Amino acid sequence: MKLSELAEQLGLELRGDGELEIEGPATIDQAGPSLVTFIIARKYLGVLSERRAGCVIAPPDLAGEVGCAALVSTNPYADFARAMRLFFPVEKPAPGVHPSAQIAPDAVIGEDAAIGACCVIGARARIGRNAVIHPHVTIYPGVTIGDDFLCHSQVSIRERVEIGHRVTIHNGAVIGSEGFGFVEQGGTLVKIPQVGKVIIEDDVEIGANATIDRATLGATLIRHAVKLDNLVHIGHNCEVGEHSRFAAQTGLAGSVKVGRWCEFGGQTGCADHIQIGDRVRVAAQSGIPNDVSGGSVIAGYPAIDIRRWRRMVAALPRLPEVIRRLRALEARAEIDPGADSC
Amino acid sequence: MKLSELAEQLGLELRGDGELEIEGPATIDQAGPSLVTFIIARKYLGVLSERRAGCVIAPPDLAGEVGCAALVSTNPYADFARAMRLFFPVEKPAPGVHPSAQIAPDAVIGEDAAIGACCVIGARARIGRNAVIHPHVTIYPGVTIGDDFLCHSQVSIRERVEIGHRVTIHNGAVIGSEGFGFVEQGGTLVKIPQVGKVIIEDDVEIGANATIDRATLGATLIRHAVKLDNLVHIGHNCEVGEHSRFAAQTGLAGSVKVGRWCEFGGQTGCADHIQIGDRVRVAAQSGIPNDVSGGSVIAGYPAIDIRRWRRMVAALPRLPEVIRRLRALEARAEIDPGADSC
Amino acid sequence: MKLSELAEQLGLELRGDGELEIEGPATIDQAGPSLVTFIIARKYLGVLSERRAGCVIAPPDLAGEVGCAALVSTNPYADFARAMRLFFPVEKPAPGVHPSAQIAPDAVIGEDAAIGACCVIGARARIGRNAVIHPHVTIYPGVTIGDDFLCHSQVSIRERVEIGHRVTIHNGAVIGSEGFGFVEQGGTLVKIPQVGKVIIEDDVEIGANATIDRATLGATLIRHAVKLDNLVHIGHNCEVGEHSRFAAQTGLAGSVKVGRWCEFGGQTGCADHIQIGDRVRVAAQSGIPNDVSGGSVIAGYPAIDIRRWRRMVAALPRLPEVIRRLRALEARAEIDPGADSC
Repeated sequence: MKLSELAEQLGLELRGDGELEIEGPATIDQAGPSLVTFIIARKYLGVLSERRAGCVIAPPDLAGEVGCAALVSTNPYADFARAMRLFFPVEKPAPGVHPSAQIAPDAVIGEDAAIGACCVIGARARIGRNAVIHPHVTIYPGVTIGDDFLCHSQVSIRERVEIGHRVTIHNGAVIGSEGFGFVEQGGTLVKIPQVGKVIIEDDVEIGANATIDRATLGATLIRHAVKLDNLVHIGHNCEVGEHSRFAAQTGLAGSVKVGRWCEFGGQTGCADHIQIGDRVRVAAQSGIPNDVSGGSVIAGYPAIDIRRWRRMVAALPRLPEVIRRLRALEARAEIDPGADSC
Repeated sequence: MKLSELAEQLGLELRGDGELEIEGPATIDQAGPSLVTFIIARKYLGVLSERRAGCVIAPPDLAGEVGCAALVSTNPYADFARAMRLFFPVEKPAPGVHPSAQIAPDAVIGEDAAIGACCVIGARARIGRNAVIHPHVTIYPGVTIGDDFLCHSQVSIRERVEIGHRVTIHNGAVIGSEGFGFVEQGGTLVKIPQVGKVIIEDDVEIGANATIDRATLGATLIRHAVKLDNLVHIGHNCEVGEHSRFAAQTGLAGSVKVGRWCEFGGQTGCADHIQIGDRVRVAAQSGIPNDVSGGSVIAGYPAIDIRRWRRMVAALPRLPEVIRRLRALEARAEIDPGADSC
Repeated sequence: MKLSELAEQLGLELRGDGELEIEGPATIDQAGPSLVTFIIARKYLGVLSERRAGCVIAPPDLAGEVGCAALVSTNPYADFARAMRLFFPVEKPAPGVHPSAQIAPDAVIGEDAAIGACCVIGARARIGRNAVIHPHVTIYPGVTIGDDFLCHSQVSIRERVEIGHRVTIHNGAVIGSEGFGFVEQGGTLVKIPQVGKVIIEDDVEIGANATIDRATLGATLIRHAVKLDNLVHIGHNCEVGEHSRFAAQTGLAGSVKVGRWCEFGGQTGCADHIQIGDRVRVAAQSGIPNDVSGGSVIAGYPAIDIRRWRRMVAALPRLPEVIRRLRALEARAEIDPGADSC
């Protein structure tokens, strides 16, 4: 693709030779004369010349200093993502239902769907237009799914699940599994029936082997444009707000309410019934036991303000030395700390 | 359903109008005039009147104050669970083997089984009566399973697994995967063969995408009525005692022995070869490095008594301030803490 | 098997009666007169006599004291593993393609492969000789796999994955899922296309329900003889060095580089873009935020040297007492710690 064409497709201002042939995208450390890369900070300018980069998507304040052709962007990473998509368009299987797929006679599947081998679609299920469903997907009876659904192999979508438009689910994920609820009675455990729904709104993406439990009563809600990474667990009756992102292996216990535009690092956990405001950022491996107000940046177990947490963890390894020095002060003051003391 | 009929089916004393028509169950914050809910603490009495609840399952000391019809119960949550089941009976597919299922000629399947599409059942496998096996389940050769088995889609049950009666396995779980054991020899890693069993006793429930490894030699034991949530991992040669419950993403390393009626919060971990007594409660995200005596309530990493842990974590963020004040005392006492000090 | 034959097959020196009939292997606590076990430490000698062990694989310094027949070994556990394999040879299904498998006409499968029921193998996929692929495996188009592949049921291998020889993948694992990358633009989240590869070298073993993301650009690399336990997550663009082992539920964020012969305990996490040297050992549940030099043994969150961490966690519960004693010293010195103090 000629660079001028790339600039036009991306809608970005070009500074440099539009005749340059661009073969593809590359990260900055893999940049080269016929590749397009991106830059977001001045400190990487040197790498561009080392790698003899051909073209870089750069912010306005750096575009004049890149030493090669530039596409001027106020959001270089996002525009680089769009450039990548031009070179690697989404591959869509040809429409059609594989003869080995088992589709209930009263299931309704929209036009131009591609249904892979061995898929099983239950009674009364309804799937919108342009679905791509890879092999070995199980859709239980009564499920409803919007248009442009992309579902990878081995996914299970249980009864009482409603899915919006443009939703992507990666391999092995389970949507609508039963919430974990038992109560002791008469020396045994009685199961709390899990008869609620999962509602997944538009533009959600769900990672491989993630699990989303349906509600006990009511609905587990995954709002518009939520992104869940691999092996994430969402408990029953949770509500995850629009555009929030959870990195891998994060878990929410039951009835957690998460606001919009939150970002959770990997292996984070939330106790049940807590509320987390909008735009909260949570460091990896944090454990959240209580409500968190909007805009907070937190870390630790139990999670606290990240600046306070950083000072704390820097000090923690010094505690044995603190105790030694405390004893020395006590000895000088002729204080006996007592038999129980540390 | 008339309220008098509901009372009779639950075996509970009714106080109020038995002619009231009950349409279904609801949590207290969704209660309404023709719904049945439950209450366990006085502080929620106000919600009942706000929601104009029609009927509430209530303990004897609150039943006179609910301001609506009451079903008197010594265990309202458990009786509410039973009420839910009356309104949402378990739906069982019609018996029969789907024509796309692949069942070995010498596998034995009990009467009234429902075997879903694309299931694969290996040679010599034996499954009891009334099984419901959803699509895409793989049962390896030689597996034995009791009566009333409920198995959701995408489950794998490996060779050398024995399962009791009334066991439920949710989607994507793997039972009998090989334990993780390697030993260095001659500059490479030699695999320890994993040739033991998994034994799952009656009334066990296993969550979505959970994994249970079989023993190296001997058996991994999941005792009567154990409940495992989604994404739980049980290592080789573990033994989990009766009625114990593990919340999501919890993991046991190898050869852990857990007692009866334990409750583990989510994302908990146990080191290998430790023993945990009966009725131990473990806070979410705890890490257990050593044996734990029965009845303990523990938290933290490494886990300690939860009351001590709470005092500790409340104090931890104060440590930088403690160090500052210690220095001030030392300065006044003209002590030099030394070059290495904090 | 006669003991003399066992000794010969293992290539170990026999001390004792070669005519003894050995029925199988056993751990030391299950040892018996016609079983072979192993011992690595003097303290277990008493168990051998209690259990009336028939034969023990023992190191040279203990072989004279075992009180029964001995096979002399410099690595008893590894030789016991080899003995186990003699009694429990790997069972390989008969070669052949199950008639329900769906194999693309242009896929190439090597000789002597056993392809299970309902497997789906995509266009242009290439699989080497002697593959054993259990039921319900999905192999996407274009995947390449070497000889002696062992793949258990429900595995998904996505497009752009290259797998070497003698690789084993356990049930439900997902190889080549898309990395988790999104960037905010114009009030929404733009997906970073994930168009790189996963390269898995020879002799790798991957646990049940593990997930390995492919690279954004370039390749996620799993080097020779890496062993991953169940539910492990490897983020996009990671590189895991030869012979490294990760216990269950461990996760690497994106672009982590791990050296050779590392050992990670369960539920460990690594932040993105960090480098970890060779032979690093990481305690379970650790969180690694920064680079780690080769040979380190670390624990905690954030992870530090394990000896320092042990002293720290032993001291931590004493902090409330430290604060009380600090106050006492301040009171004696007539210092007012101030309103903000702890």
